[in-house]
This record gives sequence, structure tokens and C-alpha cells, in this order.
Amino acid sequence: MENFENKSGENRTELENLGEFGLIERLTKDLPVHHPESTLKGVGDDAAVLQIPEGHVQLVSKDLLMEGVHFDMTYCPLKHLGYKAIAVNLSDIAAMNGKPLQVLVGLAVSNRYSVEALEELYAGMKLCCDRYGVDLVGGDTVSSRSGMAISVTVLGSAPRNKVCYRSGAKENDLLCVSGDLGAAYAGLLLLEREKREFLANPNIQPDFKDFSYVLERQLKPEPRLDIVDLLAKLDVKPTAMMDVSDGLASEILHIAKASECGCMLYQSKIPVDMETCKALEAFKILPETAALSGGEDYELLFTVAQSDYEKIKDCREIRVIGHMVEKAQGCYMVPENGSLIELRAQGWQAFANRVE
Amino acid sequence: MENFENKSGENRTELENLGEFGLIERLTKDLPVHHPESTLKGVGDDAAVLQIPEGHVQLVSKDLLMEGVHFDMTYCPLKHLGYKAIAVNLSDIAAMNGKPLQVLVGLAVSNRYSVEALEELYAGMKLCCDRYGVDLVGGDTVSSRSGMAISVTVLGSAPRNKVCYRSGAKENDLLCVSGDLGAAYAGLLLLEREKREFLANPNIQPDFKDFSYVLERQLKPEPRLDIVDLLAKLDVKPTAMMDVSDGLASEILHIAKASECGCMLYQSKIPVDMETCKALEAFKILPETAALSGGEDYELLFTVAQSDYEKIKDCREIRVIGHMVEKAQGCYMVPENGSLIELRAQGWQAFANRVE
Repeated sequence: MENFENKSGENRTELENLGEFGLIERLTKDLPVHHPESTLKGVGDDAAVLQIPEGHVQLVSKDLLMEGVHFDMTYCPLKHLGYKAIAVNLSDIAAMNGKPLQVLVGLAVSNRYSVEALEELYAGMKLCCDRYGVDLVGGDTVSSRSGMAISVTVLGSAPRNKVCYRSGAKENDLLCVSGDLGAAYAGLLLLEREKREFLANPNIQPDFKDFSYVLERQLKPEPRLDIVDLLAKLDVKPTAMMDVSDGLASEILHIAKASECGCMLYQSKIPVDMETCKALEAFKILPETAALSGGEDYELLFTVAQSDYEKIKDCREIRVIGHMVEKAQGCYMVPENGSLIELRAQGWQAFANRVE
Repeated sequence: MENFENKSGENRTELENLGEFGLIERLTKDLPVHHPESTLKGVGDDAAVLQIPEGHVQLVSKDLLMEGVHFDMTYCPLKHLGYKAIAVNLSDIAAMNGKPLQVLVGLAVSNRYSVEALEELYAGMKLCCDRYGVDLVGGDTVSSRSGMAISVTVLGSAPRNKVCYRSGAKENDLLCVSGDLGAAYAGLLLLEREKREFLANPNIQPDFKDFSYVLERQLKPEPRLDIVDLLAKLDVKPTAMMDVSDGLASEILHIAKASECGCMLYQSKIPVDMETCKALEAFKILPETAALSGGEDYELLFTVAQSDYEKIKDCREIRVIGHMVEKAQGCYMVPENGSLIELRAQGWQAFANRVE
């Protein structure tokens, strides 16, 4: 994670010393424009003005990230947080088989944060924007009573006939996933364990050796725009696609429901990295459990026609993990022993047991 | 404010009983599509898919509203809040001389809110969307540790040669404003006074008689899309335009700075409604002070070439309030007595004196 050293705040400028407009000016000065043909006007007016390429449709998505729910300042450096906030949004455009072009950022912060802290956050956002050639075209910074809220809107485009919805999978299509799964969840478990130990004994040093991959997957995920390019190069248009943000099981059920199909997932084909397995072992969690329910992997889950199998079979980054069946057959995971385990999305507990 | 009766919660469904996907399904079911040629895919995939009309550019803006900073649940009914959250975003598209087409809504709520409360909020959002023919194409609902955050992104379009930036004003252009100013601030003062009295004595009934206009301006503002239509009908393209959200003084300075001009504002021409004046009197605040620094009026402030004066002079909803001068002359308000008062944006204090 080079370039991700967290600057400790030698200088501290209070937010009220700059004012809203001064702050936005400082955070958004010298923004590069990667797409001058599309980004006609960025930050600095009532709205950004954009132009979509001829023959393309526009893709728009947004995410709202809340401190204490989606990120924990105890172990999430601000620069990583900024990078991740952009990356997870770009992933939504990748999931449509599109190319991200612009983002807008809304930020709510309390006066607990200094100007320098927000500059760190923006530095991470800009790094991710630059890496993927995306223009930051709108910035709104407001105050909050407590905690931070980050709202990102991403805009992108795709040729109209290339857009992949969740609803296009057909019976017998192959179910594929990019990269590997469960690592982000393993990273989260490690970070939360170290947080508990730190709170119990603040003199303790975190023990993260041998786990740089799973930590990076949690703290600094990458959108799989390379897979979008690869599929185009292979001349494969997925019949359905989405990104894996809530865990494989939940996403398979989304595609199956939207496509009115059933699905068979082969347990032994689920790709999990060795380091992930090792990290999960300490928590007595099975690799397939982390993959199915862990979430935040931001890999692409997609279906392709069987006739496309030859085109993808040698790609190291794409794994066939199952196939679609007729709706009446339901959605199951097939373990090595051949029995069937019904796929279920883990209950979403975000609103339960919260302290107001 | 008919149709804005606040339903008191006879039934209360807890958020955790529905889950995220159940909640989004319930809040976004049966959404009308006003622009089928532009809204190709709304809620329900990783991103919305849109098509911009031929020869048009796209306009995008977003706002993040935080409980306790931008709205106060003590006196802001949820349905009004939903309406206002959409309205203030549509105003940003009006400010570019454009037409809003779609919105996306991100909502963060704690389990303090019931499903029925969120339905009220969404009912207000949908009412505003329907009124202005805008499609709700994305909904993201997440949990928050405390308080509510509402993030709205609005998309719209305009013929490329009709877009109005802040930067196009020229020396001698006439400075114009729609409607009247200061009313939203007067409404806020009334609401805050009644809140203080209610907190001191919960048996007291609010005394709002004779102030329905200023209250409505605060609680349920309307974007001036009618002015965009009117200007098109009059064949007037403003040389610069923005909406008045932070007070007239601040906005005039924005246009002057972006356009590299100075400005003379005639104090006696600033339009303030009689009811606003009466409400302000009780707080010993001068009408021009409320207009200059009050904010949240969401009127349109714009400049037109002198040659367009004949076209606008008889419009009841448009008032000429000054004219642009060369930059070196600065920005001043000219009172009746002819002396000059330098225009200053009131210090932005949002980050100061906040309790963490």
C-alpha cells in the first residue's frame, strides 16, 4: 500500500477558519479533466454539465456511506476511506458493463475534523479518480452534528447494446465470478479483533503480518474495470451481471430473481485465496461462508451463454462457478458430496440492535 | 398546504422487520415513468440507465441534507421534508436554465424511524417528482448511528446553447430576480420561536395565524421551473444565472466573481412580500437584511442584456434589481439616499459552535 502513508496532523486548520466556499475551493483546486469531450463543466456552478458520447447511454449510481455503519475511523485511514468511497461506486458502473466518467462527492463532517484531515480524504478520492480516469465534477461539503457521511454519485456510459442488466440470465448460462471472494470479510475480522485488543490495551501493536492482501481488500478495494475491458477484448457480452457487495449468495439470488431462473452453484469452484483461508481459520469461519455472506469483495458476478465458454475458459481472472437452471428448480449450492444446500441471503441486520 | 396532513403513526412497522431490500421495494413500488424516452431503467439494478435527448447536454447536481443542520424534526413534517429535499435539487437545474428529468435518493436513518415514517418522507418526494414530471430512478437506504441524512442527486438536460453559467454576465447587463425574497428566513424565525416556546411549555399551541405564506416558503419551497419556461417563451437567454439559496448578497458576489464584473444593487428594488415584512418586524429584522443574508428562497437570480429589457419589463414575476458594472467598481448596494454599502456575504458559520 505505498503512497498510502497517513500524514499525522502536524498542522491543524479549523474548518470555520476557511468557510464553506473556501473549503470547497481548497479541496477541489487543480482537478485534472480526463474527459474534456464529456466533462464540459465540473465544479463551480449550480450543476455540472456533461456530454454523453454518441450512441451511448448513460449510467448513474450513488452510495451513501455512514461513519460507524460503513466505516470505522479507528482503523480506516482517511486516505483509504476516500479511495474506497470512490472505488465502490465505480464498481457499480463496472457491474453494468460500462465505463465510469465522472463522480460527484457530498461530504458531511463535524468540526471534529480539521481541514488537513479532509484533504487526506480528498487525496484518496483523487487517487482513485486518477487511477481510473474519472473526473470529479461536483463537491458539496456541509456540516454534521456528529459523525461523517460520504455520498458519492458516479456517472458513466456504455454503448446501448453493451449494457448488462441483472435480468438477462437464461437457463443453462454459465455463472462466473472474477478474482476471489471472502478476503474483504477476513480483513474486517482482523481489523475488528485488533481494535478490541487495542481498546483493552492501548500499548499493544497491531499484529497484521502475513495479512496484507486481506487487509488491502477490506481497506482499499479495486473496481473490476479490467474485467469489463477483458470481456470486451474476448468479445463476450455477459447475459447478466452485478457486483458482489453483499456476499455471493445474496447476489446470485438477485440475478436469479431478476432473470426468473434458478441456479446451481458448485461449492468447490468458489475461488478463495490461500491467505484468506488462513486468516479465516483463526476465527473458525469456513471459506465458503465468508464468500457467500461476507460481502465487500467488489468482484463481478456474471452469466455467459455456454457458447462463450471457449472464450473465457483460459482466463486466470474468471472462474465458472455454476450454471443457471429453470426457475422451478430453485437456487442451490452443490457440495462435493452431491447433496443440495439451499442458497439464502443472510438476514440484513443493519437496522437491528442499533444504539440511537 | 392541502394534501400535507401528517399521518400520525397508528401502525408502526420496525425497519428490521422488512430488511433493506424489502424496504426499498416498498418505498419505490409503482413509481411512474414520466420520461420513458430518457429513463431506460430506473430502480432495481446496479445503476440507472438514461438517454439524453439529441443535441442536449446533461446537467447533474447533488445535495446532502443532515438532520439538526439542514432540517429540524421538531417542526419539519416528514412529508414536507421529502418534498423540500427534491425541490431544492430541482432548483439547481432551473439555475442552469435546464429541465430536470431524474432524481436518485440516498437515505440514512436510524431505527428510531418506522417504515411508515419513511413512507411519509417518500410520499413527499414523490409528490414533488410528480408535480415537476421527474422520474425517481435510484433509491439507496442505509442505516445511521444517529440522525437522518438525505442525499439527492438530480439529472436534467438543456439544449447545449441554452445552458446558463454563473460566469456570463457583462458590464451593463441588468440584474434580475424572480418572485420575492426573505420569506423562507422569516418562516424559519417563526418556527424556531415556536419551538423555544413549546420546549418551555409543551401545552402551548403554536401561533401561526396570518403567516401561512412565509411558513410554506420555509417548509415547502418550489423550484422556479416556471421562470425557465417563461424566459424561453419570452425568447430571453440570461447571460448568467444561479438560484438564491444562501441569500442575495452571497449569490450576487458569486455571479460578479465568476463573471469578473462589479454590481450595483438598488435597495428599494429588492422584492419582499408584505407578510414577510410583518413577520420580520416582530424580530426587529429589516426586510433587506433577510433578503440579503437569509437564504433558502430558491428564487432565480440572473442577468440579461439591456436589449432584452423590453421583453421582461411587464413580467410580474421578474424584477430588475440592479445592473452589472466593471470589476474595478466593486459590488455595492445603493440605498434611496444614494450612499454606497459594500455587499458582503455573511460569514458562513456552519462549522462554528457545533456540539460534537
